[in-house]
Amino acid sequence: MRTVSELGEKKVIETVMECLDKTPDMPIPFGDDVSAVDLDLGRLAVVKTDMLVGKTDVPPSMSLRQAARKAVVMNISDFAAKGVKPLVLLVALGLPKSFKEEDVRQIGLGLNEGAREYDAHVIGGDTNEASDLIISCSLLGICDKHILVKRSTAKPDDIVAVTGNFGKTASGLKILLEGLPAPETTKKTLTEAVLMPKARLKEGLALAQSGALTASIDSSDGLAWSLHELSDASNIGFTIDKIPIAPEVCEFAENCDLDPLELVLYGGEEYELIVTAKPELWEKARRAVGNLRTPLTSIGRVTKEKRLELKTEGRTRLIERRGWEHFKT
Amino acid sequence: MRTVSELGEKKVIETVMECLDKTPDMPIPFGDDVSAVDLDLGRLAVVKTDMLVGKTDVPPSMSLRQAARKAVVMNISDFAAKGVKPLVLLVALGLPKSFKEEDVRQIGLGLNEGAREYDAHVIGGDTNEASDLIISCSLLGICDKHILVKRSTAKPDDIVAVTGNFGKTASGLKILLEGLPAPETTKKTLTEAVLMPKARLKEGLALAQSGALTASIDSSDGLAWSLHELSDASNIGFTIDKIPIAPEVCEFAENCDLDPLELVLYGGEEYELIVTAKPELWEKARRAVGNLRTPLTSIGRVTKEKRLELKTEGRTRLIERRGWEHFKT
Repeated sequence: MRTVSELGEKKVIETVMECLDKTPDMPIPFGDDVSAVDLDLGRLAVVKTDMLVGKTDVPPSMSLRQAARKAVVMNISDFAAKGVKPLVLLVALGLPKSFKEEDVRQIGLGLNEGAREYDAHVIGGDTNEASDLIISCSLLGICDKHILVKRSTAKPDDIVAVTGNFGKTASGLKILLEGLPAPETTKKTLTEAVLMPKARLKEGLALAQSGALTASIDSSDGLAWSLHELSDASNIGFTIDKIPIAPEVCEFAENCDLDPLELVLYGGEEYELIVTAKPELWEKARRAVGNLRTPLTSIGRVTKEKRLELKTEGRTRLIERRGWEHFKT
Repeated sequence: MRTVSELGEKKVIETVMECLDKTPDMPIPFGDDVSAVDLDLGRLAVVKTDMLVGKTDVPPSMSLRQAARKAVVMNISDFAAKGVKPLVLLVALGLPKSFKEEDVRQIGLGLNEGAREYDAHVIGGDTNEASDLIISCSLLGICDKHILVKRSTAKPDDIVAVTGNFGKTASGLKILLEGLPAPETTKKTLTEAVLMPKARLKEGLALAQSGALTASIDSSDGLAWSLHELSDASNIGFTIDKIPIAPEVCEFAENCDLDPLELVLYGGEEYELIVTAKPELWEKARRAVGNLRTPLTSIGRVTKEKRLELKTEGRTRLIERRGWEHFKT
């Protein structure tokens, strides 16, 4: 019988889901970035849990404070993708017995920092002894039902767009994990993307409020993987004709003789938003984010055929379902 | 500098809390069994997270299905103590790479079982690779603000009472961990208390609805420890004159030459409710639970002086702040 490392995260999740009784009237389908229950007055209580594990999610040179902050930010990013403001955070900690009092303080500071940057508060939690560092965060927010942007509602001919640019985290991880070289300022930008990730909360809230989006996801599993998730959830495909690459990534890739597209498509832990919008509302979406001085770049179109194509430099290739997947790496 | 194992769980939690910005207008103080945020119309969104760790929370002979079910039940028990009906559950899993597909299925089945026994549903989660089994559950429920019973509102002269009886889990753990002997039927009862714990949800909901309670906590950290927590939160003391002991515990203690009070007071992972009630409403409280055929036993009185005394068999002794504490054991 196969082990979880042979199955991979997606199949592990499916195996658990097959055991669960269906919840009647779920306002958001299982497998979206967040979960929710209906409140009255057309509102939702929105919840999300995401766990950080020392061994797999904390690269060397990331401090405990940064790790704790990241554990919060990766949850906030899912709320950002749905256009939901996070209110409060619960944190369940697993700490090795050998951790010092100051280690615990650094974790506390990082949790607070992550929450306060996004105007949320830590209101409770649980601590446990564990053999590795575990930071399991759960977020709660309240939103109007019509605001929340699902994964499953992209439509053919919609524009697909992304915030910011891509490739910095994959490059930063290559510097931190494999010791690849980069000039000091480039190195700083690329490793900061790993060590101090930012969630696009303001952008996500503004985009959802604009009413221009048809679907949304964050790119935390990598651009390619997240596009595949959107494709599966909405049963559509994409033709991608342009991907914004951070200039530091182009420079780093050239110097290290790496394929920049590999860094941009198949990295992960990059907390940009991938959204689809009706073409007639595209300008509205762009203005909503432009007010925040964040670029929102159209990268292609939603297609009826469930196929992910990248058409650049006169070449067409398929975007593979590859990226960071727990258990497999 | 001290390690977390020298600090103990209580001090670890304090260290984290000192790092956190205060949340304005918290409807429930930090450190109660659950956390909450105000909704409008006098309602609360109530949340709770509690993590199960294989190494410390799963005794040998507990199956993965039982472990997963227990991870849910220990969260439900906190909702029970507050009188709040749980609606939905999120689960963050940490799984060793070597786990098999069937292991994952057993965990899924246990999670579903735990939730459905209490009419809740699992609606989302996250899976990760970890070196030990980690099951971090988060619960959400909605309740009227006036219903929720805090830890901090017990008053002198209130009656203190408990559901069910005590000592079964501590005895069961001695059988499972130390191999102490017991006749087959006794052994079954005592080990079942460990392997298939039940949360007193119906009782907690009925007690809260009765309006008779002034404070409440579950006994998951042990009867003595939980009484101390109530004492700290309400700034009161207790005179305890009677503790209901399970008959199997009396038999087991006698056969193994153990002090039954030790099993009853300083065990843990026992999911009974410890409540305080105004004397004039005591009968009302008892009727509320009596309808469910669950005994609610008055075990003593709340005192003004912050001191925990046990007066039995003509002897007075102090109830120590001892019990199960993570990191310390």
